[in-house]
Amino acid sequence: MITKKEETRELEWRVTVTHKPSAQEEDSFEPRIALWHQLIDLLSLNMRSSSRFMKNAWKLGVDDPRKFIHCIKVGVALTLVSIFYYTRPLYQGVGGTAMWAIMTIVVIFEFTVGGTIYKGLNRVMATLSAGMIAVGIHWLASKSSETSEHIIIASAATFVRFIPAVKARFDYGILIFILTFNLVAVSGYRVDRLLELAQQRLATVFIGISICLLVCILVRPVWAGEELHLLTIKNMRKLADSVEESVAEYFRDGEKGDGNETSMQNSRGYKCVLNSKATEESLADLARWEPMHGRFSYLHPWSQYLRVGTAMRYCAYCIETLNDCINSENENQQKAPEHLKKHLSNACLRLGLECSNVLKELASSIESMKRSSSIEVLIGQMNDAVEEVQNILSTPSLEGAESKAAIPTIPLMEAMTVITVASLLNEITLRIDGVADAVEDLAVTAFQSFEDAQQTDKNKSSNELAAGSDGQEGNLPQAQLPSAAVPRAGAA
Amino acid sequence: MITKKEETRELEWRVTVTHKPSAQEEDSFEPRIALWHQLIDLLSLNMRSSSRFMKNAWKLGVDDPRKFIHCIKVGVALTLVSIFYYTRPLYQGVGGTAMWAIMTIVVIFEFTVGGTIYKGLNRVMATLSAGMIAVGIHWLASKSSETSEHIIIASAATFVRFIPAVKARFDYGILIFILTFNLVAVSGYRVDRLLELAQQRLATVFIGISICLLVCILVRPVWAGEELHLLTIKNMRKLADSVEESVAEYFRDGEKGDGNETSMQNSRGYKCVLNSKATEESLADLARWEPMHGRFSYLHPWSQYLRVGTAMRYCAYCIETLNDCINSENENQQKAPEHLKKHLSNACLRLGLECSNVLKELASSIESMKRSSSIEVLIGQMNDAVEEVQNILSTPSLEGAESKAAIPTIPLMEAMTVITVASLLNEITLRIDGVADAVEDLAVTAFQSFEDAQQTDKNKSSNELAAGSDGQEGNLPQAQLPSAAVPRAGAA
Repeated sequence: MITKKEETRELEWRVTVTHKPSAQEEDSFEPRIALWHQLIDLLSLNMRSSSRFMKNAWKLGVDDPRKFIHCIKVGVALTLVSIFYYTRPLYQGVGGTAMWAIMTIVVIFEFTVGGTIYKGLNRVMATLSAGMIAVGIHWLASKSSETSEHIIIASAATFVRFIPAVKARFDYGILIFILTFNLVAVSGYRVDRLLELAQQRLATVFIGISICLLVCILVRPVWAGEELHLLTIKNMRKLADSVEESVAEYFRDGEKGDGNETSMQNSRGYKCVLNSKATEESLADLARWEPMHGRFSYLHPWSQYLRVGTAMRYCAYCIETLNDCINSENENQQKAPEHLKKHLSNACLRLGLECSNVLKELASSIESMKRSSSIEVLIGQMNDAVEEVQNILSTPSLEGAESKAAIPTIPLMEAMTVITVASLLNEITLRIDGVADAVEDLAVTAFQSFEDAQQTDKNKSSNELAAGSDGQEGNLPQAQLPSAAVPRAGAA
Repeated sequence: MITKKEETRELEWRVTVTHKPSAQEEDSFEPRIALWHQLIDLLSLNMRSSSRFMKNAWKLGVDDPRKFIHCIKVGVALTLVSIFYYTRPLYQGVGGTAMWAIMTIVVIFEFTVGGTIYKGLNRVMATLSAGMIAVGIHWLASKSSETSEHIIIASAATFVRFIPAVKARFDYGILIFILTFNLVAVSGYRVDRLLELAQQRLATVFIGISICLLVCILVRPVWAGEELHLLTIKNMRKLADSVEESVAEYFRDGEKGDGNETSMQNSRGYKCVLNSKATEESLADLARWEPMHGRFSYLHPWSQYLRVGTAMRYCAYCIETLNDCINSENENQQKAPEHLKKHLSNACLRLGLECSNVLKELASSIESMKRSSSIEVLIGQMNDAVEEVQNILSTPSLEGAESKAAIPTIPLMEAMTVITVASLLNEITLRIDGVADAVEDLAVTAFQSFEDAQQTDKNKSSNELAAGSDGQEGNLPQAQLPSAAVPRAGAA
């Protein structure tokens, strides 16, 4: 936040101070200076940093134009509600019901459809149930100043918000429940007046929510479920590139220098996977609320995507360690013996490539929402590559061109990094198996019904066209598809 | 969520169906059945699952009684505001100003002090600024039905919420800004009436926030900053146990079987570190808003805790890989040669212990908020242990009791896991160095001023007591404290 210019000014300002401040005094100045700079930034007095801020903000929108569109959508919803209330006689200013419609839109309109539905449904259900309970108690007690029980109920409801299962789905609803319940309980109105008010308020909230949902779903919708689906695919491809590039970087090292910029960037892609846990979880929570959209049905098994994400993260931990082992070797200049590295090079490069192929095929399988027909073959090839590496490490002496130096005569210390790289690659293949299993589970629960639906459509149309002549044919490849969850044969 | 009893019922229900449903039909039943069960659960018709739910909820509160206390605090705040408004003549029912006070308390009262202050300050600032701007525009335009500019401003403000730096600190504030701005803009009141309303509403919001803050800070406060501090210490101790127990588990394996329950649990402690990123970040965001409390000053460098957390997570990734390598060896029954394992055993066990000691000392240093005097020695010992392991791996043949089998004659494949464990331990020590560096940075920025403050207090009191006789003495150990950021000598 502190630009060069500000630093200079700070120095200038220090020069004008009559006594040189001691280290301790400087310490106590620092926070105040920091706060001051923050305030300056905030109030946009510093033109340079504010123009940079604007540039960054603009870039944010250009990178993802849906963010601009979201703002326009909020504007449209507010315009609609304004028009609705300006053309109706029930408009009465801030104190009137129009306020509730605007409040509803501002508070409920979220970036994703799932988020909007979650807040909208929670708001309606909470307002309704809290209102009914409060009016009920009111009516039973027939007195307006009984505050003890509504405070007890509010406290209890506050506690419920701590329960994780409830928090994930109904946190906002309970907040609105407490709010409405208290408002009604302390209102002091008679029941008939209360019912009238409740009716008005519910109608207004309902109008607000309807406008929100209409604009949110009809104008370029952003579905949380689709976002989760795309994020999973993107992360899996990044993981595939990371494995391949990391191995290549290590073994190509002597030949090609430090590698170019793109391959460096590719080999760091796993970091996105490490950091996407929170995003995935919130998207899955919101996706649950979404109706059928695109290729996703209502009650699509979103939690399976979380399992795939977890399996990918396990894979990423291992790639992270692999990368760091490679880097720390580079930094310490304690290189592995060149001939041993060369000897393992081809097998390891192939293994890296096979790992990457499996992950890419899994990503394509998720993308097309079809079980892959070649995944079994690819996993088999990956296992072959693992065995090849293991065989090289198992042979007590070499028979090829490198026979002048038999591996076992190297002190273990020198071979440490190469062996660790091989061992970690081995571990990574096990974890890729885990990813394949998770994707297979996803395929069984999610893609099967999607494929079946497609099949039914296809059959129906072909039945209509060819009057039942080859209606069964389309089903055959389906039955022959092998399962991706093949047990690893002899690996590791 | 589906209990045994329900499953039985579901089966019974299926039996009564006249035709056996095909696999595909069953698939389409499943979601509906799941939804039905969820509804049943939700409406608490199923006594058993609801009693289990209650038990879990109760356990949640018993495990952390502050959650119960929080609920009581919310109740107290609501009681106070009720009393305040019942005893004042300005009370006018739901439409009146009391509503704003209750709304403020329900929406603002958070578990931590930082959360409450964050929301409270944001609410006040946003209400004030939005109100002023809206009234200003109103007054300039001198017409009430101009809706275009308030929608443009609302859209622009919506976009600002996407900017990460703004979102972390002012998300709630901008929401309230949009809300207030729109409410004022569409109100249609004349400026003088608006000012009166604004004054009333601000006073009410202010009363609500004051009551919130008073109750939140005075009654058993939960400080976000302190939570972050304690979480960091707890995670670091878990990490220390994990390293030690993982190594011990692997090398003790032949002697003691699978180890007992506690050590299993200890060796899995790193998983908490892997998952605490989101918690740490939100606590640090909230802690920034908190005033001086306990041993923490205002503007305590909370972001440094995030750096320590990141360094610990890097360490945890490596421990995760270590654990999995050990487990996959156990599962595959392909054991490393016993004599090699035994040969490395003592050195590795010592290294694990030294790693653990460094982490525990760092945790104690954070806990006491004092730079550790022994950390340099401990890091030195850890590096010695690393060198010992490296020496064992470097010697081409063994000289001790195990000399009958020289290490280098083992095929590399068999030694793979042992070497990988050693290599990963080596990597872990490098990452522990990273943790030590991060803690040192924290110590420089945070503990120094705390220690100085303590020192000043001490000096002052000793000066007052002994009239300056030994006021300087207390400063001596401070100057002699070594820095923890020692460069690694010859390790890896």
